[in-house]
Amino acid sequence: MKFMCSRDRLNEAISIVQKAVSTRSTLPILDGILIEASVSEGVKLTGYDLETGIEAKLEADIKADGSVVINSKLFGEIVRKLPEEFVTLETDDRLTINIECGSSVFSIKGLSSEGYPKIPEVQDAQKVILMQGVLRDMIRQTIFAVSTDESRPTLNGCFFICDGFSVEMVAIDGFRLALRKQAIGSDLPVMKFIVPGKALHEAGRILDGKDAELVIYSSQNHILLDTGKVRIVSRLIQGEYMNYKAILPKSGDTTMLVSSAVMLSAIERASLIILSEDRRSPVQLTMPNDEVLVISASTELGTLREEIPVSIRGERIDIDFNPRYFIDALRVIEDEEITIQFSGSNGPCVLKPTEGDDFAYLVLPLRR
Amino acid sequence: MKFMCSRDRLNEAISIVQKAVSTRSTLPILDGILIEASVSEGVKLTGYDLETGIEAKLEADIKADGSVVINSKLFGEIVRKLPEEFVTLETDDRLTINIECGSSVFSIKGLSSEGYPKIPEVQDAQKVILMQGVLRDMIRQTIFAVSTDESRPTLNGCFFICDGFSVEMVAIDGFRLALRKQAIGSDLPVMKFIVPGKALHEAGRILDGKDAELVIYSSQNHILLDTGKVRIVSRLIQGEYMNYKAILPKSGDTTMLVSSAVMLSAIERASLIILSEDRRSPVQLTMPNDEVLVISASTELGTLREEIPVSIRGERIDIDFNPRYFIDALRVIEDEEITIQFSGSNGPCVLKPTEGDDFAYLVLPLRR
Repeated sequence: MKFMCSRDRLNEAISIVQKAVSTRSTLPILDGILIEASVSEGVKLTGYDLETGIEAKLEADIKADGSVVINSKLFGEIVRKLPEEFVTLETDDRLTINIECGSSVFSIKGLSSEGYPKIPEVQDAQKVILMQGVLRDMIRQTIFAVSTDESRPTLNGCFFICDGFSVEMVAIDGFRLALRKQAIGSDLPVMKFIVPGKALHEAGRILDGKDAELVIYSSQNHILLDTGKVRIVSRLIQGEYMNYKAILPKSGDTTMLVSSAVMLSAIERASLIILSEDRRSPVQLTMPNDEVLVISASTELGTLREEIPVSIRGERIDIDFNPRYFIDALRVIEDEEITIQFSGSNGPCVLKPTEGDDFAYLVLPLRR
Repeated sequence: MKFMCSRDRLNEAISIVQKAVSTRSTLPILDGILIEASVSEGVKLTGYDLETGIEAKLEADIKADGSVVINSKLFGEIVRKLPEEFVTLETDDRLTINIECGSSVFSIKGLSSEGYPKIPEVQDAQKVILMQGVLRDMIRQTIFAVSTDESRPTLNGCFFICDGFSVEMVAIDGFRLALRKQAIGSDLPVMKFIVPGKALHEAGRILDGKDAELVIYSSQNHILLDTGKVRIVSRLIQGEYMNYKAILPKSGDTTMLVSSAVMLSAIERASLIILSEDRRSPVQLTMPNDEVLVISASTELGTLREEIPVSIRGERIDIDFNPRYFIDALRVIEDEEITIQFSGSNGPCVLKPTEGDDFAYLVLPLRR
C-alpha cells in the first residue's frame, strides 16, 4: 500500500472514524483504524467497535493497493503533529507503516487487516433523505432523554418514526420524554426503528453543513447514515418501543406561557443551591397570581426565590421538579416563548411550542 | 454589612481570591471567602489556605460595615449566574447573606469572620518594583522546573535573587535547572529568598497587563506581591538554596545553533512514540555532520527519525534525553534561534540565548 494525501484531510478523516474506535477493547485490533487503499476505489478509513462502524473516504494519490490496521490513538497523535502539508503512507511486507512528511519519517508496526471485523452490509433497505443539519438538531434535542438503564434495552436508544410525511424522534428515560417532529415531504417510506444512543451521539458530532444531504438506510437489523464522504453503520435495538403517544397528555388543567430563556436561567440559578448528589431536593414552582411564577429552592446551603413574568390560564398549582429535567429540555428548545401544560401537582407536565407540534418535552414532577 | 456592586467586578474579584482557597480543607471556614466591607476602607475579598493568601479590592457602594465568610464555590457559581448587572449583598444578624439581583434573591448561610485566620503582615520589608508582565513571564519560564520532591524542601520553590541591578529566578528539580534573568535598573536592594511553587503558580495566573506595576515586598518569612488592586502573600521557604552557579558549566565541548521552533516540533513528534510511563526510552540526538542534527526515538510502538538543520562547532557527539525536559524548556523560550552547549555524551547540556545571559536551561542527559 502506498498513497500521498493532505495532512489536514487525513487528520479530519481520522478524527471522524476515531469516534467509533473502542477505547477499552480487549482485542488490540479494535483499538486500530483500518486503512484500505485501492487505485479503483480510493482510500477509506474505518473505525468499528462491533456496535457502531464509521467509514470515511479520503482523497489521495494512490500508488499501490493494500490495507493495514494502525493503532488509532498513536496514528491520530502523529498526524496531528506532522510538520508539513503532504504526507506519504507506505507499508512494507512486514506490515510496518512508514509515515513520511517533510524530513520526518515515522515507522509504526501495523496489524494485518485480515483480522479486522467486517461492518455489516445494510441490505434490502428502505431510505429517507434528510438534511444533515436537521438530523443533527433532532439528535441534540432528544438524546439527553435516552435511558441508560440496561434493564430496559428498548429505552437505550431513540425511537425513529417516519409516517410517510414527517420524521419523529422520541427518547424516554422513565422520568421524562423528549419528542421532536419534522415535516419532510411526501411519498416517504413508512418505517420505524430504535437506534442506540451511542451511535446517534457519535453521528451528532460528525454531521455538519445544514445544506448537505444525508441518506438514512434501514434494514431489519441495521441502520446506515450516508453523507457521501462518511458512512455510519449501527445495529438497531430490537423490540417494541413504549407506546409514547399514550403517555403524552392531550390537554392539561393549567397552561402557562413563558419565555424559555428567562425560565432556563432562573432554574439554573435554583439548581446551584440544590446539591447535585441530593436528588430529593426539588425546585418548587408556585403561582401567586395569573401573571407571576415563583421559582424557589431550599437546601441546607440556603435558599433562592425568584419571580418571573408568565401568563397562566386555568387552575393555579404548586409543583416540584428535578431541575435537571427542565434544564436539559429548555437548553435545546429554540423557540423564544413556549407553552407549559400542567395536569395538577402530581401529574406530568409538558413543554410545547405555542403553536404546532414540532416538539414535546414531558417531565414527571417529584411528589410532595 | 450591606453593599451594592457590579456583578462582573464581583465575579472577577471572586475568581482571583478563589485561587488561594483551599480545595480540600478539613476546616469548613478555609473553604470560604472572607468578605469585609467598611465605609472608610471599601470592600475586600480574601482567600487563604494558610500558605498563600490573596486579597482583592472591590469597588462598591457601601451602606453598612461588616464582615462574613461565605462558601467559595457556591458564591462563585451564584455570582456567575446572576441575571443582571447590579448586585446587593446584605447580611442579617444570624449571618445569613442575602444576594439580590434583578428578581433573584439568594439567602446563603455564612460563617462568622471571627474564625477566619489572619494573613500575616509583611513587616520590615525590602521592596522591588517590577512590571507585572515581566514577573508573569519569569514565573512561566522557570516554574516547570520546581521540584515536587518533598524531601528537599528548598527545591519546592523558585529562588529569587536581586543583586541590586537585575532580578534572577531559578528552579531546580534534580534533573534540570531553569534560570531567567532580567535587568531592572539600579539602586535596587540586594535580597534573595525562596518562594513556594504553588504561590508563584497562582500569582502567574493573576498577574496581567504588561504596563502595570507590581511591588514585591519581602521580609524574613514572607513575601507580598502588591498590584494595588490585588495583594498576594506567601510564606517563604527557609533554608539555603542549592549553589546553582556551580552547576551551570561555563563552556562546553560542543556548541550548536538551532531554531527553537524546529527543534521543539521534532522533539514533540519523537515524544509521541515514547510512552509517557516509560521514562527509560530517550529521544536520541546524533550529529552526522556539522550541519545536521538527527532526532530519533525507538520503542515497541515504532520509530521516528528526523533531520533538522543546525550549525555545530566543536566535537560531534551522540546524546540521549528525556524529551519532556527539552519540550518544557523549548516551549517557554521566546528567542527564534538558540545555542545549545553540550559537555560530552554524559555531561549536562545547556540551552542559552545566542547572545546575552537572559536565560539558561540545563538538562541532564540519560546515560547510555
